[in-house]
Amino acid sequence: MIDHAPIVIAPIVILVRPQLGENIGKAARAMLNFGLTELRLVAPRDGWPNPAAGPAASGADQVLDEARIYDDVAQAVADLHHVYATTVRPRDMLKPVVTPVEAVAAIRSTQGKSGLMFGPERSGLDNEEVALADRILTVPVNPQFSSLNLAQAVILTAYEWYQAQVNDAVNAQADVARPEMERLPAPKAEYQGLYDQLERDLASRGFFRSAGRKPTQMRALKTLMQNAGFSSQEIQTLRGVLKTLTWPERDGPESGEDDR
Amino acid sequence: MIDHAPIVIAPIVILVRPQLGENIGKAARAMLNFGLTELRLVAPRDGWPNPAAGPAASGADQVLDEARIYDDVAQAVADLHHVYATTVRPRDMLKPVVTPVEAVAAIRSTQGKSGLMFGPERSGLDNEEVALADRILTVPVNPQFSSLNLAQAVILTAYEWYQAQVNDAVNAQADVARPEMERLPAPKAEYQGLYDQLERDLASRGFFRSAGRKPTQMRALKTLMQNAGFSSQEIQTLRGVLKTLTWPERDGPESGEDDR
Repeated sequence: MIDHAPIVIAPIVILVRPQLGENIGKAARAMLNFGLTELRLVAPRDGWPNPAAGPAASGADQVLDEARIYDDVAQAVADLHHVYATTVRPRDMLKPVVTPVEAVAAIRSTQGKSGLMFGPERSGLDNEEVALADRILTVPVNPQFSSLNLAQAVILTAYEWYQAQVNDAVNAQADVARPEMERLPAPKAEYQGLYDQLERDLASRGFFRSAGRKPTQMRALKTLMQNAGFSSQEIQTLRGVLKTLTWPERDGPESGEDDR
Repeated sequence: MIDHAPIVIAPIVILVRPQLGENIGKAARAMLNFGLTELRLVAPRDGWPNPAAGPAASGADQVLDEARIYDDVAQAVADLHHVYATTVRPRDMLKPVVTPVEAVAAIRSTQGKSGLMFGPERSGLDNEEVALADRILTVPVNPQFSSLNLAQAVILTAYEWYQAQVNDAVNAQADVARPEMERLPAPKAEYQGLYDQLERDLASRGFFRSAGRKPTQMRALKTLMQNAGFSSQEIQTLRGVLKTLTWPERDGPESGEDDR
């Protein structure tokens, strides 16, 4: 008798500021080939819909028709629990770097919704966008010649997703144990609320030495919070703490009652 | 002491009757991305060299320059020990059908030269050509939407080849740091300092509803911080943040300089 494996939630593909409609279509085709159907577009350069996308999708119209558009990455990942930022070269950020295989294994071992972010054709994701991710996804490639384009990065990741599904079906018959579930971090919107509160209250107290250093300092704080993997409850607690600290001191350290 | 793995011979990619020079270039690019350099072309429709190939190779010229041309498959595979015929749909032939992973494992376990055959864009390999192969190579793909093009079939196979090489290197020296980042949590004394600062500054602002609830609330905060596994650097940053928040608000949110 086989005990049923928990439902696995397919990752959402997020194309950030994609330039060519043709590449959006190719990404949709790559996705559907390997069973991924949910596509999000962040500020596509040439607007949306894009007439060049359909032909390049060669039949994966369903993915394009259901694509959702967002103004920025923060909005696009607001409801996601785990976000992966795809980069060609490692960035000097304190985030775990994983391969497609490792990312797929992690995605399959959580009940939360996961997103795979891919940057613009030329520049890739900027540091602000990468800072919103939990992990950095990098495809191991020939160091003497690394020339993966957008559609290729998408298809290799989607491919690994589908292979794991296929192996799962095989293992299910072999009754192989599934990896156990990890604890669920808060959705990104709750992290964003925490970041906004921190930035506002710190700025008004001169925490940021200069306007120029502010982005770097905020990025460091975001990474610090992100790595912690706080739950929704923990983020509520933290926000209560931060709020309290902005109040004027009014009682002695041994203070008791307070009627908030 | 590391025992040396036997020398592994990289497979040769054989494009049979390819139609578009652009696809030959894309295949070369896909190969070099994943460490494959030996390309053979069987009766390319538009002859060889093909001016459309170079631009599509985006730098993988070496692969194109060294490509060898053959009149038919029999000649192209004459010196090979193991030949794989890539097909989208399984043919009713009495040959073993393998996935890219299985093919790569087999190729890496033989001392003979192996070849990966890919057919023309539209029609694929004909049965005569498949008959010259030892095994049929099929990429597991969404049965509801299987639309892999030539370059995609090449890159997925080359990708599996390279991943196996990388894993080999990793296994060969298991103690070498993996991309996954190891985070050293701060010593307990630094956590204690953080807790003391929090307790003092929160108490003086009436965070603790009552003296009775204070221990419970502090325990919750400690657990929250502990689970995060902050580094020493992160704890320093956090303490700077908390300190700042206890200062009176004095500038507008967009404040700049501060000479702490």
